[in-house]
Amino acid sequence: MKVLLLVCDGIGDRPIEELGGKTPLEAAHTPNMDALAAKGECGISDPISPGVRAGSDTSHLAIMGYDPYETYTGRGPLEAAGLGMEVKPGDIAFRCNFATLDENMVLTDRRAGRIADSAPLAEPIDNIKLDGAEVLFKSLSYRGALILRGEGLSDKVSDTDPHVTGEKVHKAHGLDGSPEAEKTARLLNDFTGKVYEVLKDHPYNQERLSKGELPGNMALTRGVGMAPDLEAFSEKTGFDPCCMATTSIIKGFAAMLGMERIDVKPDYKERIGQALEILQEKDFILMNIKEPDEAGHDNEPQRKVAVIEEVDRALEQVLDFVDDNYFILLSDHSTPCGIMDHSGDPTPVIICGPGVRTDHVKIYGERACARGGLNRIRHMDIIPILLNLMNKSKKYGA
Amino acid sequence: MKVLLLVCDGIGDRPIEELGGKTPLEAAHTPNMDALAAKGECGISDPISPGVRAGSDTSHLAIMGYDPYETYTGRGPLEAAGLGMEVKPGDIAFRCNFATLDENMVLTDRRAGRIADSAPLAEPIDNIKLDGAEVLFKSLSYRGALILRGEGLSDKVSDTDPHVTGEKVHKAHGLDGSPEAEKTARLLNDFTGKVYEVLKDHPYNQERLSKGELPGNMALTRGVGMAPDLEAFSEKTGFDPCCMATTSIIKGFAAMLGMERIDVKPDYKERIGQALEILQEKDFILMNIKEPDEAGHDNEPQRKVAVIEEVDRALEQVLDFVDDNYFILLSDHSTPCGIMDHSGDPTPVIICGPGVRTDHVKIYGERACARGGLNRIRHMDIIPILLNLMNKSKKYGA
Repeated sequence: MKVLLLVCDGIGDRPIEELGGKTPLEAAHTPNMDALAAKGECGISDPISPGVRAGSDTSHLAIMGYDPYETYTGRGPLEAAGLGMEVKPGDIAFRCNFATLDENMVLTDRRAGRIADSAPLAEPIDNIKLDGAEVLFKSLSYRGALILRGEGLSDKVSDTDPHVTGEKVHKAHGLDGSPEAEKTARLLNDFTGKVYEVLKDHPYNQERLSKGELPGNMALTRGVGMAPDLEAFSEKTGFDPCCMATTSIIKGFAAMLGMERIDVKPDYKERIGQALEILQEKDFILMNIKEPDEAGHDNEPQRKVAVIEEVDRALEQVLDFVDDNYFILLSDHSTPCGIMDHSGDPTPVIICGPGVRTDHVKIYGERACARGGLNRIRHMDIIPILLNLMNKSKKYGA
Repeated sequence: MKVLLLVCDGIGDRPIEELGGKTPLEAAHTPNMDALAAKGECGISDPISPGVRAGSDTSHLAIMGYDPYETYTGRGPLEAAGLGMEVKPGDIAFRCNFATLDENMVLTDRRAGRIADSAPLAEPIDNIKLDGAEVLFKSLSYRGALILRGEGLSDKVSDTDPHVTGEKVHKAHGLDGSPEAEKTARLLNDFTGKVYEVLKDHPYNQERLSKGELPGNMALTRGVGMAPDLEAFSEKTGFDPCCMATTSIIKGFAAMLGMERIDVKPDYKERIGQALEILQEKDFILMNIKEPDEAGHDNEPQRKVAVIEEVDRALEQVLDFVDDNYFILLSDHSTPCGIMDHSGDPTPVIICGPGVRTDHVKIYGERACARGGLNRIRHMDIIPILLNLMNKSKKYGA
C-alpha cells in the first residue's frame, strides 16, 4: 500500500464577502475533492494547536510527525538545506541576503538590486577563514545561507541584517550571556568584516557597477538556528519516502528528514501523474502545492478559487488510487485572503484508504469537514493515524 | 450517586465488507445501548492519543486517569498482581512461562505441554534463595510471575525467554550498562540455573514424564517492569471502588490501584445484576467484559456481533439506573477483526447520568458517536469528566 500526502499550501481561509460569505475552498467547484471526502474520513486539523499561527516550516514538521517545539530551531538550517548544503546537527545556520552597502557600511539595498547570478560572489565568501569555526556559504539569486561549524557555538545571537535601509549593518551580539553566544557573535562580526573586504572591490561587482547594477558587497544574516538532530522519516516510520515540492524551504525540510527530493512538473495533472508513477517504486510521497498560499498572501480570492479548481481537476486521477492506497489531503495552515498571511485557523483534512471509518461528509471544505468523523485533530496526529490504519504502529503496552 | 464504568473490551472496529460496510457494533441490534446513547452524551475517545495503539494495560490505566507514560513500566508487575502477589513499589517483576528444556538447556516446549496444575513446581521456585534479592514466585497453569525484591535492582534487563523453540534459554544481560542492571541480570541468570536445578529431577516432573507429559523444568522470564508507586484510585478520587473482571491482567491492574476485586458471574445479565447489587454498598465499579476483544482477535465479526447483542440485553437493567447514577460505556481500545489485534482507532463512548448535556446521538456506534457532544476526547479525560459531573472535582484556581 502506498501513500500520497498532498499539502495544498495555505488552502484554508475564512468567509469572504465577495464570495457570498463562502471561503475560496467552499466557493470553488471541486467535484473530485468532494468525491474523495465522500470516500474518506474528514475532520479539521490544527497545525500546532488551536489558534496558534504556524509557519510553513513548523506546520510541515508537525505534518510529518515531528514536534515543532522540540525540533524547530529557526529558519536558517532549513534554508541552508534547501540550497543543497549538507547541514549537520549542531551547525549554526543563517538565512542571508546579498545586499548593497555604501562606503560607510550603510545599507542602501537589501537585495543588491535583486541580483540574479550571485555564484561569483558566493565563492569568495565560502572561502573565508575564521578563527574558531568553519565557514560554509551558498546562494541562489540574492538569497543565501551561511553555516558556522565548530565547537562551542550557539544560536543565541542577534541578526546582522538591519532589515531597513539607511541603517548600518548591525553588530551581532550574544543574547543569553553565554560564552558560546559571545564567541558566535564575535565570529559573525569577523565574518561581516571579511565579506565586505572580499566583495567591495570584487571584479564581478566592478562589472555590475559598470553596467549600472547595484553591487552585492554584503551578506546580511538573520533567521539563525542550530541544526537539530532529526531522526530520518524513513527510520521513524519505515517508509521509503520522497518529497515533491517547488519551494526551497520545503525542499530543505525534506533534505533534513532524509527524504529524496524530486523535481516537479508545473502542471498539476502532470504532477499528480508523476507522483502516481513514482509510487510504483517509492511508498510515500509528501507533495506540496504552493499556489493557494500565494493567492492568500496576495489577497486574491478569485485567483485562489481558480487555483483550487485546477488542483481539483488533477485529483481525478486519485479517485481509484484510494481503493487500495492512502491519500491524505490537507493544508499546512490557513492563509486567509483577508489576513494576507498565515493564520491559526484549523484546516480541513481528508484521509482516504482501506479501513477508514467513512463518514457522512461529502464536501471538502472548512465547515463541512468540521462535522466529520475525525473531529478535530492536530497535524502531529496525521502520521500516527496513518500508521495505525496501515497497521504499522507499535503497540504501547500489551 | 453511584458509578458503573463498563469497558467492553475491544468493541471498536472498522467497516467490514461481510457486514455491509458496517462495524460489528453498527451491525448489532442494540436497543439498550442506543437508548443509553439517547439518554447520555456521546463521543469518541482515543485510548492514548490519535492513532496510538494501546495495550489492555495502558488503556485501562488511561481510563482510570493514570497517565500511562508516567505509570506504565511493563507487563510484569500487572501479571504478578493479577496472580494475587503483593507487588511493592520498586519490585522488579516478570511474566513467566513454565517451559520444557532438553538436557542441553534447549527449549523444546514454551508452555511445558500447557501444564494445568503447576503449584507443585512453583513452590520450590518460590523457595529459591539468591544472593542480593528476595525471590517471590507464583503461577497459574503454565503462566507465572517472578518478583525480585531488594536494593539496587533495575528493570533494564533482557528476557531469558528465547520466544522460539530450538534455542537455548537466553542469558539475561543489562540493557543500559548501569550496575543495577548488571546486578539484576546476574540475579536472573542465577535464578535460571537454580530453577533448572530444583525442577529437573523434581518428583512432580518425574510423574509427568511417566504419564507421557512434558516436564516443566524452566521458568522463562519476559515483560519485565519495575512496579510503580501508584496512588490508590480511592485516594485519587474519593470513591470506594471495586473491579469486576475475568482476566488476570485487569485483576492485577485493579490490585495495583488498591481496588477490591470481585469474582464475576459468566452470564452478562447476572453480572450486571450483581454489579447493581454491589453498588448498594460500593460507589464505583470498573467492569470489564472481555469477549468482544476475543472475537476481534479471532477475526469473527458475526461472533462479535452476537457478543455485543448479548451485552446489550444485559444493559436493560441500567436504563433506570442512569436517572440518578452514572453509567459510562466505552471500549479500552478497538480490536478490528480485519487486524486481529488492537488498533489505534478511537472508541465510541457514552456518559449517562445527572447533569450531562444530552446530545442528538441516539445510536451507540463508532460513527454515530463521532457526532456527539463530547466530540473527540482521550481516555485520560474520562475520570475528570465524571468527577466534574458529580461535582467532586477540586477547583483549579479561585
